[in-house]
Amino acid sequence: MEKRLNLLMFSGDYDKAMAGLILANSAREMNVEVTMFFTFWGLLLLRDPEKIDMEDKSFYEKMFCALTPKNVEQLPLSKMNYAGIGRRLMKEMLDEEDAPPLTAFLKGARKNQVKFLACKLSVEILGFKQEEFYPEVEIVDAKVYLEDAWKSDIQLFI
Amino acid sequence: MEKRLNLLMFSGDYDKAMAGLILANSAREMNVEVTMFFTFWGLLLLRDPEKIDMEDKSFYEKMFCALTPKNVEQLPLSKMNYAGIGRRLMKEMLDEEDAPPLTAFLKGARKNQVKFLACKLSVEILGFKQEEFYPEVEIVDAKVYLEDAWKSDIQLFI
Amino acid sequence: MEKRLNLLMFSGDYDKAMAGLILANSAREMNVEVTMFFTFWGLLLLRDPEKIDMEDKSFYEKMFCALTPKNVEQLPLSKMNYAGIGRRLMKEMLDEEDAPPLTAFLKGARKNQVKFLACKLSVEILGFKQEEFYPEVEIVDAKVYLEDAWKSDIQLFI
Repeated sequence: MEKRLNLLMFSGDYDKAMAGLILANSAREMNVEVTMFFTFWGLLLLRDPEKIDMEDKSFYEKMFCALTPKNVEQLPLSKMNYAGIGRRLMKEMLDEEDAPPLTAFLKGARKNQVKFLACKLSVEILGFKQEEFYPEVEIVDAKVYLEDAWKSDIQLFI
Repeated sequence: MEKRLNLLMFSGDYDKAMAGLILANSAREMNVEVTMFFTFWGLLLLRDPEKIDMEDKSFYEKMFCALTPKNVEQLPLSKMNYAGIGRRLMKEMLDEEDAPPLTAFLKGARKNQVKFLACKLSVEILGFKQEEFYPEVEIVDAKVYLEDAWKSDIQLFI
Repeated sequence: MEKRLNLLMFSGDYDKAMAGLILANSAREMNVEVTMFFTFWGLLLLRDPEKIDMEDKSFYEKMFCALTPKNVEQLPLSKMNYAGIGRRLMKEMLDEEDAPPLTAFLKGARKNQVKFLACKLSVEILGFKQEEFYPEVEIVDAKVYLEDAWKSDIQLFI
């Protein structure tokens, strides 16, 4: 029987995003179906940096947009970020091992047909628009997540 | 067969608590049995703000109590808290969408008969007392959590 | 049928490590097979403090090594660390309850035959060496983690 992996991506941290995407891509290589459900800070991973659009946003939504990185390579580390120094250190270490940066893992997941879902309520609260996300992103509610999660063999909250 | 969801609530962050309670309430609407097991910082969600009691606490327990918010609406965000500014921003955004604050989600979960368990060891270490929690909270050990978790279809660590 | 618990230890926080090890040890007491897969900051839990070796490390790896605690008792709390004051407070509270410190829980897990796996990619990126870890630690890739995880009844990302 086909195996399934379901990841709830809550965090927008560089290192946690890496961990989630490495699991997702490894699972795809093993022919496992993978769903990633992005909520809250995790939604920062789904924005197409070329399509961020400040129009029709409220004052608070604009402020939120201004405070959060447009590009996933600027996301902070979950620990030892030290105003970006820790992240730079981590990236130098990735580079030394020829490990690709987050952007490449994300691209890989998109190409490998990982299913990308975005939490409707979070999208509304944070003022994102469908057009700001990658085109394959589907906006769904928590019930769709739950339905997918209990058909899965592994569920993680990242 | 009946579905079950089991959430281990470790974090006391405003946004993570929201995520957990949204899942719990959505699952209840689908007639899924939900258990939330609260440990460490998660216990801050279970205290009845009207019943916090400093008597019979050691010096360190009192200090801990003084340093942690009495009211769940004062819990910090997991990211971008910026001394409370981020949380205020998040709340303004919730408000714009007519999304209820954390207190309402918590009330909903209690009304919807989500099962609330508190980790015995954490309760003892942090010096909480049964009387400080909502009356339906049951104090149990890690084994009771594990028994419940493996009867469940989804288990998450939040 | 035999039960299995699988914990992915991403975080290197004192309190989250405690939570994971308490679950692992409780499960072992119930005769449950336990695998802990350590990745990123979680790897800081696996180093034998007597065997940390700066030779053959790159400049960035040495810097990383200098910035991270050698001894698990110096790991930060996930919240309220306040430059170590919060951790000291937590330890005083542990002490008052005669609860053992993290070192003892880790020792317990090793003695109780919890299976310790380390993520190969993280080990390479962070510049750790097999000899720096406890001898029973096995270095494996994400696929070995996934295989173990879907044979398990409970999987958590900590």
